[in-house]
Amino acid sequence: MSIMKQQCVSDLENERKNCSFDKEELTNIIDGGVEKTQFRRRLEEYFLRDPEFLDSIGPDYMSHEDRYANELRKACHMIHKFSENEEINQVIGRPDGVRSIMGLGFLGALTRDGNPLQLHLGMFIPTLIGQGTPEQQEKWLGKAVLGEIIGTYAQTEMGHGTFLRGLETTATYDPSTQEFILHTPTITATKWWPGGLGKTANYAVVMAQLYTKRQCYGPHPFLVQLRDETTHQSLPGLTVGEIGPRLGMNTSDNGFLRFDHFRIPRTNMLMKHSQVLEDGTYVKPLSSKLAYGTMVYVRVGICFYSCHLLQKAVTIATRYSAVRHQSEMLPGMPEPQILDYQTQQYKVLPQIATVFALLFSARSVGDMFVEATKSMNEGSLALLPELHALSCGLKALSSTDSTSGIDICRLSCGGHGYLASSSFPRLYTLCTATMTYEGENTVLWLQVARYIIKSYQAAKSGKVVGPSVAYLVGKNTTDVKTDLSNAGLLEACRKSVCAIVAEVESRLQHLCSKGQDFHHAWNNMSVFLVKCAQVHTRYYVCEQYVQIIENLKLSDGLRAVLRNLCRLYVVNHIIVHQGDFLRCGALSASDMNALEEEMSDLLAALRPQAVSIVDAFDLDDFILDSVLGSRDGNVYQRLYDEALKSPLNQKDVPDAYYKYLRPLMKANL
Amino acid sequence: MSIMKQQCVSDLENERKNCSFDKEELTNIIDGGVEKTQFRRRLEEYFLRDPEFLDSIGPDYMSHEDRYANELRKACHMIHKFSENEEINQVIGRPDGVRSIMGLGFLGALTRDGNPLQLHLGMFIPTLIGQGTPEQQEKWLGKAVLGEIIGTYAQTEMGHGTFLRGLETTATYDPSTQEFILHTPTITATKWWPGGLGKTANYAVVMAQLYTKRQCYGPHPFLVQLRDETTHQSLPGLTVGEIGPRLGMNTSDNGFLRFDHFRIPRTNMLMKHSQVLEDGTYVKPLSSKLAYGTMVYVRVGICFYSCHLLQKAVTIATRYSAVRHQSEMLPGMPEPQILDYQTQQYKVLPQIATVFALLFSARSVGDMFVEATKSMNEGSLALLPELHALSCGLKALSSTDSTSGIDICRLSCGGHGYLASSSFPRLYTLCTATMTYEGENTVLWLQVARYIIKSYQAAKSGKVVGPSVAYLVGKNTTDVKTDLSNAGLLEACRKSVCAIVAEVESRLQHLCSKGQDFHHAWNNMSVFLVKCAQVHTRYYVCEQYVQIIENLKLSDGLRAVLRNLCRLYVVNHIIVHQGDFLRCGALSASDMNALEEEMSDLLAALRPQAVSIVDAFDLDDFILDSVLGSRDGNVYQRLYDEALKSPLNQKDVPDAYYKYLRPLMKANL
Repeated sequence: MSIMKQQCVSDLENERKNCSFDKEELTNIIDGGVEKTQFRRRLEEYFLRDPEFLDSIGPDYMSHEDRYANELRKACHMIHKFSENEEINQVIGRPDGVRSIMGLGFLGALTRDGNPLQLHLGMFIPTLIGQGTPEQQEKWLGKAVLGEIIGTYAQTEMGHGTFLRGLETTATYDPSTQEFILHTPTITATKWWPGGLGKTANYAVVMAQLYTKRQCYGPHPFLVQLRDETTHQSLPGLTVGEIGPRLGMNTSDNGFLRFDHFRIPRTNMLMKHSQVLEDGTYVKPLSSKLAYGTMVYVRVGICFYSCHLLQKAVTIATRYSAVRHQSEMLPGMPEPQILDYQTQQYKVLPQIATVFALLFSARSVGDMFVEATKSMNEGSLALLPELHALSCGLKALSSTDSTSGIDICRLSCGGHGYLASSSFPRLYTLCTATMTYEGENTVLWLQVARYIIKSYQAAKSGKVVGPSVAYLVGKNTTDVKTDLSNAGLLEACRKSVCAIVAEVESRLQHLCSKGQDFHHAWNNMSVFLVKCAQVHTRYYVCEQYVQIIENLKLSDGLRAVLRNLCRLYVVNHIIVHQGDFLRCGALSASDMNALEEEMSDLLAALRPQAVSIVDAFDLDDFILDSVLGSRDGNVYQRLYDEALKSPLNQKDVPDAYYKYLRPLMKANL
Repeated sequence: MSIMKQQCVSDLENERKNCSFDKEELTNIIDGGVEKTQFRRRLEEYFLRDPEFLDSIGPDYMSHEDRYANELRKACHMIHKFSENEEINQVIGRPDGVRSIMGLGFLGALTRDGNPLQLHLGMFIPTLIGQGTPEQQEKWLGKAVLGEIIGTYAQTEMGHGTFLRGLETTATYDPSTQEFILHTPTITATKWWPGGLGKTANYAVVMAQLYTKRQCYGPHPFLVQLRDETTHQSLPGLTVGEIGPRLGMNTSDNGFLRFDHFRIPRTNMLMKHSQVLEDGTYVKPLSSKLAYGTMVYVRVGICFYSCHLLQKAVTIATRYSAVRHQSEMLPGMPEPQILDYQTQQYKVLPQIATVFALLFSARSVGDMFVEATKSMNEGSLALLPELHALSCGLKALSSTDSTSGIDICRLSCGGHGYLASSSFPRLYTLCTATMTYEGENTVLWLQVARYIIKSYQAAKSGKVVGPSVAYLVGKNTTDVKTDLSNAGLLEACRKSVCAIVAEVESRLQHLCSKGQDFHHAWNNMSVFLVKCAQVHTRYYVCEQYVQIIENLKLSDGLRAVLRNLCRLYVVNHIIVHQGDFLRCGALSASDMNALEEEMSDLLAALRPQAVSIVDAFDLDDFILDSVLGSRDGNVYQRLYDEALKSPLNQKDVPDAYYKYLRPLMKANL
């Protein structure tokens, strides 16, 4: 067996010898600076080397209950380690501190299949900070940060997801006792899905329709105690439990919650923005758009998160592709590394290119968010609609592309990608969930489309529109030459988006002029409106990619590699969506031939750098958690060793044999 | 809660009132005739109503070991019921009887996450029949059918999948003892993946490189006993176990197997085709192509199987879409059924259309296989290459489209599609495996491409080629008008395939003329060769669809519905791949506008029939196994009831609280 180990290892060593750039330079760019790389590595050292985070047997072998207990154990230990670390304590003290710590991708690796305390950290605490008054924060925030109370965020209901106004849970103010009465009027009103709600949390922020003085003021947040702080028993007047097994995230303890005229004090309504006074008078917030801010933050976070999952997947697939030998390329010659096959390169390399595309554009929107928050604090909300549309589009695009990219990577590893020990199953199940939560993607695309169509119509009539959509009517499309340079291809993208938006908008108008009301016409064009949103967002991503690569301070070696990746991303996007470019004449059939030939060249040019690029992602073996993707490339021995750990392999003859198989086999004796 | 039940139920009842065709007529067409519907229903009654197939708790709650035991229990009971049923016994007596019984989609529902006896029934027994001599069948077949011995089929190795010639396991003939010595020379030679191999099977057909008289004759099948028939202990000289948890099929007991100079009698080589005589003389088979037959059969079976999984998924998604109400279409109006949204229709209806596309083309290739088998028995192998290419292409296309269709259906149900109780997770994990097993899809596409390019070159030089590829140079492309009728669109498909193949072949030639040898040139064009194979196969599917709908004897009501489905399939295919049609001029930009508008109309026309069509799939609630998809539409109550079954919900306070959560919460007290 040692010969095989030798070969696997030397395959990767040979790949690394090809490296044409400074890996550490690339790592710093990915992290966002030298200090950030160092900070991350210090924390990784602190967490990943702690044996408490190891599993005695893999969670996939355990029962549902044991799996939950095992991840809860590690999640509690994580909180404990937070409080013991000076550096983390400093960060957590800042307004978005908890979220920025939670944003460190590697923390997800500590709990493998979902962290029951995720929403406590990622939603409950930030909501207390964002929506609680100083008195409310005084009362609950400190306890929450220390883990003395554990909360979750209960918004979605069994019958109501992305459409917030549809929520049915009511909070009716009773001025006689100065309490809100929480109630679940129907089965569809059952709170459903919040992580940690099932068995872990003893508090929750509950979104409910606020009724006072016989009037409904829409959904508002209430802080609700769910379980006794001493016994952890659920309180009378509510029913709480977990919603059962899922495609993935089976230890995040997603739960349901029903209220039967359950009373909470008036002061438990989170009143930073809206208030209900003692007599039941409703005081409305300064702006209804303020809540957008949090949504933008959460969506940009999802972009980074899904991108991180894709980074893992493509690291595994790339290393495995360099180690795996298969079939014949030349008759009679040894089986080549599968990374030498163009079809394999085409599965793996565009995913590497996508990682940077998503990372750079998420960072751009993140920077815009910081700016917007400044203007908001100065009273200007002008940037919000723009930012809302961009973050919706980018969340939908990132989650979709990362999920499909992970699936492509998994399939590129053949049958072994189907094994839990490859880590692909978990990466897929975690990532595909981001397509649905925090705004279902189709709903988001249609919100983006609404912004685009509105802006397009405004711009046509001469009004000023946001910078991200100004291009829709900005230039005369015949002025700028579309050659096959990056600038030319971006111009072709621009032309094709403009043509698609113009066509869809005119058909929308046409339906209205034929007598359909706007809402029906909108619905009857919605498949194509989604398309408008997608091509617009993709154009933004391509543009950011090209700009950022040119503007970054880089050594020549690294710039050459990143330019190739960027070029591959743009060229491949155009080839895959060639119809959008051919249909409006932005590019010709012969342009397409040229781009296809260039893509073959780009794959060949990038192939020798592939292993080094994913090395620069700097993902620890503990984080990758994959027998196929470990840094040393010792794939087959790890596959075998991991299999031997199966509880079924601890006995030669399984108990089930005596119970079921033997009676069948011996039935006729 | 009863009001909600009322509404869900009446939503479906209202949908059913719209039905414009005879559901039973459609059911019969799907089954392949009235008698087949009746046969299926009799067997469903026999199996599905048997309480032995119920689980006390869902498998997702169990530990890995318990899950295996639970499915083994049901699998053994299934075999037992086979032997007790007269009708089944009659079918099993026929050559492909076991496989045709196993092909009944509903049997898959009895064991929910993989049947440890699947390969015993689906591969071991058929291989004994197909490759064993009469004496060998006499010895083992009867025992296998009764379940007295349980076998599996061990071909793939850790380092070797689709590329059969790469297998490393050796079977070396020793004439002195008249035995074969089976050996596993490296870690990559470890047999890896066979279902049932881990703990269940006591026999296996093992594919190994045959060595006799110091010469290697390539992979051959050997019947190998793995475990003692009395104690079930694994035999000395071999190591066998299971390979650990997977994305899905976690109870199919996939295993590994290693030999250490393990001896079996010469007469255990399956010698129907090739033989090794007592003195070690190798006698080669009449034709090396005979083995193709089984592969074609298995691949067509996978087409039907993946299509069956898609049928389930789209039944669930369609019913849920009729029951679920969400958002606003008109401001201030009640939340509409989500099936009224065009974006939702576009997720669900094309999947319904795809079901028939895959079903009809699999049936066409199946019929061709029956014909080819007849000619083969008469000594003609002419149809084999054609059949091989078609079945490879169709397997790759069906598995890909069914998998993505299931995923689209899951996502169309929002968060609830992520729940195990929706059944989508299982449908996805089962279906995506078909993209890899029995020939990894990319490898299959490239085999199809090889056939296409070879045929194209042969046809250009005037040679006769198979009927499925004759069109590549058959007509002059300028002769036939491409209007937007079905015939016109098929002609546009034909033109676009011809253009793509011609372009790719010419670039291939060009690379060769620039000095690349053919194999490197082939590799450097392989991304585009895959494309050739895909568009060729899609064209075949579209053509069969149009032809079969026109040729079937149908009532007018049903024909209208099926025509719309077929039209939707073809039109949507063209819209999605518009670039292929625009690039060669087969269709124009204004054609595309017209087709897009037609697609909107088709979605609207089919929407009222959607529930009735999936009703006609006639899938029992037991088979669907989904709280979202049951016939009565009582979605929310079922969701809730199913959640209450979670073992975690049997106690208010989980044990893990005392162990992990309480110490954290009380740390500072």
